[in-house]
Amino acid sequence: MRILVINPNTTLTMTTTIGECARAVAGPGVTVEAVSPVEGPVSIESHFDDAMSVPGVLAEIAAGERTGVDAYVIACFGDPGLLAAREVAAGPVVGIAEAAMRTAAYLGRGFSVVTTLDRTVGHTWDLAESYGLGRHCRGVHATGIPVLELETDPAAYASVVTASRAALETDGSDVIVLGCAGMADLCAQLQAELGVPVLDGVAAATVQAEALVRLGLRTSAHREFAPPPVKPLRA
Amino acid sequence: MRILVINPNTTLTMTTTIGECARAVAGPGVTVEAVSPVEGPVSIESHFDDAMSVPGVLAEIAAGERTGVDAYVIACFGDPGLLAAREVAAGPVVGIAEAAMRTAAYLGRGFSVVTTLDRTVGHTWDLAESYGLGRHCRGVHATGIPVLELETDPAAYASVVTASRAALETDGSDVIVLGCAGMADLCAQLQAELGVPVLDGVAAATVQAEALVRLGLRTSAHREFAPPPVKPLRA
Amino acid sequence: MRILVINPNTTLTMTTTIGECARAVAGPGVTVEAVSPVEGPVSIESHFDDAMSVPGVLAEIAAGERTGVDAYVIACFGDPGLLAAREVAAGPVVGIAEAAMRTAAYLGRGFSVVTTLDRTVGHTWDLAESYGLGRHCRGVHATGIPVLELETDPAAYASVVTASRAALETDGSDVIVLGCAGMADLCAQLQAELGVPVLDGVAAATVQAEALVRLGLRTSAHREFAPPPVKPLRA
Amino acid sequence: MRILVINPNTTLTMTTTIGECARAVAGPGVTVEAVSPVEGPVSIESHFDDAMSVPGVLAEIAAGERTGVDAYVIACFGDPGLLAAREVAAGPVVGIAEAAMRTAAYLGRGFSVVTTLDRTVGHTWDLAESYGLGRHCRGVHATGIPVLELETDPAAYASVVTASRAALETDGSDVIVLGCAGMADLCAQLQAELGVPVLDGVAAATVQAEALVRLGLRTSAHREFAPPPVKPLRA
Amino acid sequence: MRILVINPNTTLTMTTTIGECARAVAGPGVTVEAVSPVEGPVSIESHFDDAMSVPGVLAEIAAGERTGVDAYVIACFGDPGLLAAREVAAGPVVGIAEAAMRTAAYLGRGFSVVTTLDRTVGHTWDLAESYGLGRHCRGVHATGIPVLELETDPAAYASVVTASRAALETDGSDVIVLGCAGMADLCAQLQAELGVPVLDGVAAATVQAEALVRLGLRTSAHREFAPPPVKPLRA
Amino acid sequence: MRILVINPNTTLTMTTTIGECARAVAGPGVTVEAVSPVEGPVSIESHFDDAMSVPGVLAEIAAGERTGVDAYVIACFGDPGLLAAREVAAGPVVGIAEAAMRTAAYLGRGFSVVTTLDRTVGHTWDLAESYGLGRHCRGVHATGIPVLELETDPAAYASVVTASRAALETDGSDVIVLGCAGMADLCAQLQAELGVPVLDGVAAATVQAEALVRLGLRTSAHREFAPPPVKPLRA
Repeated sequence: MRILVINPNTTLTMTTTIGECARAVAGPGVTVEAVSPVEGPVSIESHFDDAMSVPGVLAEIAAGERTGVDAYVIACFGDPGLLAAREVAAGPVVGIAEAAMRTAAYLGRGFSVVTTLDRTVGHTWDLAESYGLGRHCRGVHATGIPVLELETDPAAYASVVTASRAALETDGSDVIVLGCAGMADLCAQLQAELGVPVLDGVAAATVQAEALVRLGLRTSAHREFAPPPVKPLRA
Repeated sequence: MRILVINPNTTLTMTTTIGECARAVAGPGVTVEAVSPVEGPVSIESHFDDAMSVPGVLAEIAAGERTGVDAYVIACFGDPGLLAAREVAAGPVVGIAEAAMRTAAYLGRGFSVVTTLDRTVGHTWDLAESYGLGRHCRGVHATGIPVLELETDPAAYASVVTASRAALETDGSDVIVLGCAGMADLCAQLQAELGVPVLDGVAAATVQAEALVRLGLRTSAHREFAPPPVKPLRA
Repeated sequence: MRILVINPNTTLTMTTTIGECARAVAGPGVTVEAVSPVEGPVSIESHFDDAMSVPGVLAEIAAGERTGVDAYVIACFGDPGLLAAREVAAGPVVGIAEAAMRTAAYLGRGFSVVTTLDRTVGHTWDLAESYGLGRHCRGVHATGIPVLELETDPAAYASVVTASRAALETDGSDVIVLGCAGMADLCAQLQAELGVPVLDGVAAATVQAEALVRLGLRTSAHREFAPPPVKPLRA
Repeated sequence: MRILVINPNTTLTMTTTIGECARAVAGPGVTVEAVSPVEGPVSIESHFDDAMSVPGVLAEIAAGERTGVDAYVIACFGDPGLLAAREVAAGPVVGIAEAAMRTAAYLGRGFSVVTTLDRTVGHTWDLAESYGLGRHCRGVHATGIPVLELETDPAAYASVVTASRAALETDGSDVIVLGCAGMADLCAQLQAELGVPVLDGVAAATVQAEALVRLGLRTSAHREFAPPPVKPLRA
Repeated sequence: MRILVINPNTTLTMTTTIGECARAVAGPGVTVEAVSPVEGPVSIESHFDDAMSVPGVLAEIAAGERTGVDAYVIACFGDPGLLAAREVAAGPVVGIAEAAMRTAAYLGRGFSVVTTLDRTVGHTWDLAESYGLGRHCRGVHATGIPVLELETDPAAYASVVTASRAALETDGSDVIVLGCAGMADLCAQLQAELGVPVLDGVAAATVQAEALVRLGLRTSAHREFAPPPVKPLRA
Repeated sequence: MRILVINPNTTLTMTTTIGECARAVAGPGVTVEAVSPVEGPVSIESHFDDAMSVPGVLAEIAAGERTGVDAYVIACFGDPGLLAAREVAAGPVVGIAEAAMRTAAYLGRGFSVVTTLDRTVGHTWDLAESYGLGRHCRGVHATGIPVLELETDPAAYASVVTASRAALETDGSDVIVLGCAGMADLCAQLQAELGVPVLDGVAAATVQAEALVRLGLRTSAHREFAPPPVKPLRA
């Protein structure tokens, strides 16, 4: 089984870390490949970045289709291009926000999302609502750390711990969801320190994608997610 | 006052019609320009098409900013790129689905959307929900007519009439919303024939954009819709 | 085009101010008349006041119909008698709470309402919910200033500024909606001071009413809002 | 204990019937008085009628307060003036739509409302939503019988039976709510014939009002429903 | 009329108090019997306790059926076994959380629940949502007092007062609902002290059960709540 | 890794089938054990059956804890005892309705549930709502086949096919969820025949439980789902 994990931004060190986190949880016999688009924003911190990353994500999926990939993970917490990707791919496509939130719902009463910049909070709420998890999501909390500084700022981990503790208290939640693929490598340590389940979407989406393939399930091609009509990109 | 109406697809005959419909309702002193992206799908009938049209829409907005456009209309019923456009533009940006639905809410108990292909129905419901109009939207009905055949299929108008009549009855609605910019020129005749308000989003969005400018209102730059951080599109 | 702006209370200085605010935004060729009922509460600060103002509002609409008014604005933030008015009027009727809230939804992620007395907060939430904007409305904040003291209390403006700043912070909102027609003349100054969009319902409803007329739209007479059966007011 | 049942319309034969239905279920020691406003519509079948009945309803409550009434029932399925009445009355006020719907919720999975004219359907849905029973309410079905013909049309009962049977099937409901005070005297026979619980709001509201008094409960005077500020009805 | 009030836990002093509170509000001619299961948890403070109490509750209902009980009250704020009880009983069954919340909705804008342990808060929200009162319920507040210490801890009453006052302020509510049958005897004093309506579910459910019987209403036996198929409890 | 799949009813042939379906999808290194309670209803087709099965389910979980089970599946579509089980078990617990519905949400726009008896439809909707999937669930359709006849009735499969086809059409759905553990062995054939994803909850829950263990996740013990206070089952 081949799972393609797509980092929608073009920062390759992040792609490498994401690939490692995915591989760490994939089952035996599962090959995980991690890629980035050739072109696109170096990090995704706005609706603009999100939108500009999508053609690159879809190009990676089209490439994956040509080599028989079994399932895809879109590894940015905004789940950019998820519905379009489902039209293009034959196999299942899982977004990391979607997987983190849905998985969190098995584990407690409600989760808090701890994320990067304040300006992404609204989009996270939109996702929670559209996935049906508006009541499970108890709060979305920005640390103020830009995506690319998660790897370099020595205070990043401590900020995430502080925000998580405050969120559990303020929101009355019992689970933490990490709101950025760039936080994937903080997950285990954070869970040990907080004593509550901590969800990294990269890991959650990878095992979910694997599970769907093992169950013989793929996106329904009945109506909405049938392959899109092929048409020229210029009149 | 200059309003830029962006047809997100690249079919120029449609752009022309859209521009005419917008100009027909704009107030005195308002200049309406209608444009299409240089590159992008010739029609938008899938999540894939929607996603692929967005970079072109955002490029038109960036170009509009350089020439001092006061407000923008995104003239495709999927409202592609609306939130990203609000980050990029200084003035207000109005989507035609958003304007048609919000305007319909002033006029009756509930509206039915009559649209093109069955595969777009889910996206229309997503928009209605995210605009807060999930209860006002009583039904979304596909005629099965592809976007580009609206102009050429002599039976198109009759199909829209039939679907609208059935929708009013089945849904218990009292207003019709046209679910495609390509139906803009059918609006007046349809309203006369059905005897209920019929909303064309192109017209609704144009007068809404003009109204916002006249009120001195623009998208809030506080938090989420502040100008996006500038960053390279390749690492 | 003639738009009748009805101040549902009987305080004529307020009617005058409301008329000026409406005229300031009306387009060329639009005549705005501002009236008050002959009889009714001098201000509207309770469900009782709201209910007692409605017959007077409906009488003004009936009078407007006899002189061919094109559209109506109900200029009290409780939108008293809105649905009944839509049955009586041939043209569109717009409430200022409805217009302020729907217009705010084009401009940001979520709005906070800043209003007069604490006892009106519940009614504002009811309106937000019934207009489909329960999620867009992030908070309703009372300043404690009675309606008629807005004009006379020299500290009123400062109170509104303070409440607005606190609301933006507490609610995580990015737009302010003024919750009383008596605040209409504070709008421009407040927007300049806060740096976020500030919505006055009188202005928003006036341009909305004008827009509906220009679009050739009126309330649907199909079912619920058909003219009401004429009947004696005493058995 | 004295309960005042207010028929908001001015048709006295209906007031008499309503009073009898209320008395039939009141407990020992409870005096039920049934009154109508001096002035107001002879039947309530539109938003306009509803609005015009409210001042009369509130006058009856004010009169009741002067004679020490313990609780009030507003006996029209639109619950006209309910929130204003709660401000004015010291004791509890119960609307018949509210009581019928809340009581129905104890008895099954979901109820269908069978009512008079099609144009009232929207208002019934608004009430169900505002009472929190939007999911419990599975359908609202108009028989097309005007309120005042319920007493005179010999086919009325059969129409209600037919509409109820169809509603149980179509809606998947298991309880019927009668959507008009004028149907109160059909309740027992209908329940026997249909074999499911049938709710008449007049009876339900009367026992509910009695129950609230017996429990020592009255409307909260904390904030919203405190007595309204007294003010002139003319400036 | 005979009403059986079932205390789902096995602490008989609590059963006695509950019976007294129920009898204090029952009307003339109504006999109230209070019972506990033979076996089951001594108090209900977890999902586990709730689940383990249900077979005992259902056994008491089956016993009640054999002696012709007219209606049942389930006197634990988690409403354990309510839907199953409705299948088994011929007459109506009322839960105390359900009755307290639905009754509170007649009395104000929104209620706050004051309860025992923090771990029960989630279940209370689930009940509020399933009864349609998610918007009416403004907050659920734990005092930290275990159920069985309500009777013995001399500081319990003061804690409930403090939590109630804080809840009214924080939640913007105007009614208090007591979240445990063990608080029934605190109700009158608390209401006098707080000056807002205070709901004890035992009293509310008893008068509600009596009201349903007086109205001739019982659980619908159409579909879901028909008597359950009889079957062996071991294959 | 050891996963315990608990069939909440006491029909051992069903337990055997369920165990086989679970084992068929479990990954390498995963041991699946299937058990039934010693005592409990032979099938679960009512709220009564559901309630009476729970003590047995919890006893199996307590037994599993003593032998170090890693995760549990509750294999009845009513998810009986799920929240209580989460308090008792150290590892994760997954219900089959929950897993089937959440997994279906990755695969399409909306799912239809095809189930056994009409009387269970309401409970399925309750589950969908509480899991946040009320909008994703487009319909619940009863075939009228009792649980234990699924194995013996030769027409059962054809009935499920017919109901599924009708559901896809009526509901506008694109995924089928099987609403009974007894349908697990029909899943693959049905999916092949219908051409849309078909979800069997037993398989979905088994891979989900495995995934949670592999991710190092267990139910949060913070507040609500902490181990329940130990207490006597008789006062």
